[in-house]
Amino acid sequence: MTRSLIGDKMASMSGLRSIMEDIATSTAGSDAGEWLNLSIGNPAAIPEVMQAWQELTEEALVKSFGEASCNYGPSRGAASLVLAITDYFNDRYGWDIGPENVVVGPGSQMLCFMAAALYAGPGTAGRTRTVLPMMPDYTGYQGLCMNTDDIAGITSGIEISDSGRYFRYTFDFAALEERTDIGMLLLSTPSNPTGRCVEQDELSELIRIAERRDVPLLIDNAYGEPFPQICRTAVPPAYHPNVINSFTLSKAGLPGERIGFAIGAERYITELVAFLSNSALHAPRLAQMAVASSLRSGALDRLVSTVITPFYANRRALAEQLLTDTMPADVRWYMHAAAGGMFCWVWIDEDWFDDIELYRLLKTKHVFVTPGRNFFVIPADAGPADRHQTRCIRISLSPGEEILTEGIKRIADTIAELRDLARG
Amino acid sequence: MTRSLIGDKMASMSGLRSIMEDIATSTAGSDAGEWLNLSIGNPAAIPEVMQAWQELTEEALVKSFGEASCNYGPSRGAASLVLAITDYFNDRYGWDIGPENVVVGPGSQMLCFMAAALYAGPGTAGRTRTVLPMMPDYTGYQGLCMNTDDIAGITSGIEISDSGRYFRYTFDFAALEERTDIGMLLLSTPSNPTGRCVEQDELSELIRIAERRDVPLLIDNAYGEPFPQICRTAVPPAYHPNVINSFTLSKAGLPGERIGFAIGAERYITELVAFLSNSALHAPRLAQMAVASSLRSGALDRLVSTVITPFYANRRALAEQLLTDTMPADVRWYMHAAAGGMFCWVWIDEDWFDDIELYRLLKTKHVFVTPGRNFFVIPADAGPADRHQTRCIRISLSPGEEILTEGIKRIADTIAELRDLARG
Repeated sequence: MTRSLIGDKMASMSGLRSIMEDIATSTAGSDAGEWLNLSIGNPAAIPEVMQAWQELTEEALVKSFGEASCNYGPSRGAASLVLAITDYFNDRYGWDIGPENVVVGPGSQMLCFMAAALYAGPGTAGRTRTVLPMMPDYTGYQGLCMNTDDIAGITSGIEISDSGRYFRYTFDFAALEERTDIGMLLLSTPSNPTGRCVEQDELSELIRIAERRDVPLLIDNAYGEPFPQICRTAVPPAYHPNVINSFTLSKAGLPGERIGFAIGAERYITELVAFLSNSALHAPRLAQMAVASSLRSGALDRLVSTVITPFYANRRALAEQLLTDTMPADVRWYMHAAAGGMFCWVWIDEDWFDDIELYRLLKTKHVFVTPGRNFFVIPADAGPADRHQTRCIRISLSPGEEILTEGIKRIADTIAELRDLARG
Repeated sequence: MTRSLIGDKMASMSGLRSIMEDIATSTAGSDAGEWLNLSIGNPAAIPEVMQAWQELTEEALVKSFGEASCNYGPSRGAASLVLAITDYFNDRYGWDIGPENVVVGPGSQMLCFMAAALYAGPGTAGRTRTVLPMMPDYTGYQGLCMNTDDIAGITSGIEISDSGRYFRYTFDFAALEERTDIGMLLLSTPSNPTGRCVEQDELSELIRIAERRDVPLLIDNAYGEPFPQICRTAVPPAYHPNVINSFTLSKAGLPGERIGFAIGAERYITELVAFLSNSALHAPRLAQMAVASSLRSGALDRLVSTVITPFYANRRALAEQLLTDTMPADVRWYMHAAAGGMFCWVWIDEDWFDDIELYRLLKTKHVFVTPGRNFFVIPADAGPADRHQTRCIRISLSPGEEILTEGIKRIADTIAELRDLARG
């Protein structure tokens, strides 16, 4: 059996997907209480949110099932949703965008996939790459690049807070400027996994670099502005000829229906619409109607401000308190100072610590956590570029409070166990 | 602005998509009766079918909205749908497939896109292509190939019936055997655009060739077995180590929700699941639940046998009668002898005929028809390889009877007008 070059890359799952499969296989058929899964990327099951989306979908079904579900639609997205999006963003941010600036897709990961394929990879003028200006970042970005070596990441600086409890990655813009292979810049904010939110001056600097190279800067707002707004400080998305903003309804409660959209300069959006037309055709339509209605009526904004944002703020406070209370006092560890996002990112800065070893040991105790190394781009022919990359773990804030409480306790105990093993 | 090589290809719409855009733009905001659109690829709006899908979706919404829509799902497809598919096909065809042989995707076009990317294109051992063993075939296949020159087609033979009213394409297996660049074979049956259904001995020959080259043969059953079964003679799909079968719910009435699936050897399906996991993640889930229920309850089989199959049989009989009654007697024309599908494929075998010229002239008369040339793979640096390719049109059977009747009359009149113009 022979595959294409693309096939050689895309026929296997990225590192983290394999771990997700391991978790799915391990927990299949188990009772809910049997495993403590602190690895999940799913948004929390918040009853008000689920109820609201069910009502919106029911309304769409009654009003427009035949028109929506029994017809093919435009690749750009259903006209009513595209209009709802332009109105919403023009109102909220004072923009002046039209339908030509919007494309709705079957999830924002597919939008990133298409953008990376369009703007990075082998080209007539040589090879360019999707460059992550800050590592770590979403591991799926590595999976969606279609050729081995299509992606690269800039090693971040690290700042430790005065309290000694938090740390924070910093951009190395000088290293970014040195790269000659940038085809596209890609950044999630708030970041998956760290929760870090890009600041206004950092965003301006990234845009300046994108503009000077005339490459797109794709900003993935999956956890941020304007929904689900799981962030403390909200830098508004930028509208600029070199920026593509991607948004999704997944973290606002509707992950199963795969609705994402991108807003940007017409030159990029037109090409994303064409790619979509050539591949998946268009996003599913009934959910598009529900989303349009949620934007128009203000229902989504109400959910975000009264339920979603406070929910994750509470969960984060709980998780940080639990870590502070349970982590062994003589282990050197830090949490990433997070302005948002759905995860706690924890760095255990000890020579004896290894993220995969912790993953394996925790699995024997029926706890799942996400090892951190997959969030760093590590070339195939190299081990982790520095030891930091094997010393981080990602803890999801989505599980119920009891699972989070017991899970973090077992994580702390297991880290103590690893410490004892190392010290002999 | 620079693009990748893939970007250079995927950033623009394929020929037929441009025409679809032209039609969408022309008819936007018009009253339903203002245009006679005989170009549409949408399935007919059959009230019983729309009602049935609405009820199935409503049932899924009430029963499993939270579980389905508010959670990410497996890339292979929701477990309940995958199981419903394996049970359905094992029962119906006596197969012995399991979940490892099934992948659900956001539409069967996306499944074809992924398969073409995996198995054809630039590779370590040189370039292979997606090869269409019979031309014409679905124009979207050209759009979904990610590099220029990734696709090739075999010129078909032509047989004319004794009555002189019908013609039929025939496979040129010898020409297919000569190709050294086959990465994947791809065929729709019943064919879009011709309605031709592959016969058992032809299918066996294609499988034999795929097996000898060890490449996948992707059979696109969008219009055929086991649903929507718009076909007179039903050759059952083949289960074979070199065959991938794709199926879709689109032509069975649910195009807007983008549910397709593929069944095949585990080696192929595993790789399609991985590609999906890396790109669109998974198909929308609420519709997956509705489809699972339609397979389990027999609701889909009932719709097919009592409504869908007879509906298109009647429409085809009507269209063929209308063409016979209205086409000018002194024009040499033939219909493709069609065992199925949603279209009439008409060949006007006259030197003065040009499909695009007819398209343009019909547009001035508020009628849309699909010019045929885009269904042939024509290399970028060549004109149509033979004149046959510019002398065919595709007429959709989906519009209402009145539109079909008046539309075919105007098509016939306009062909007479072109004849008169040519004869001076």
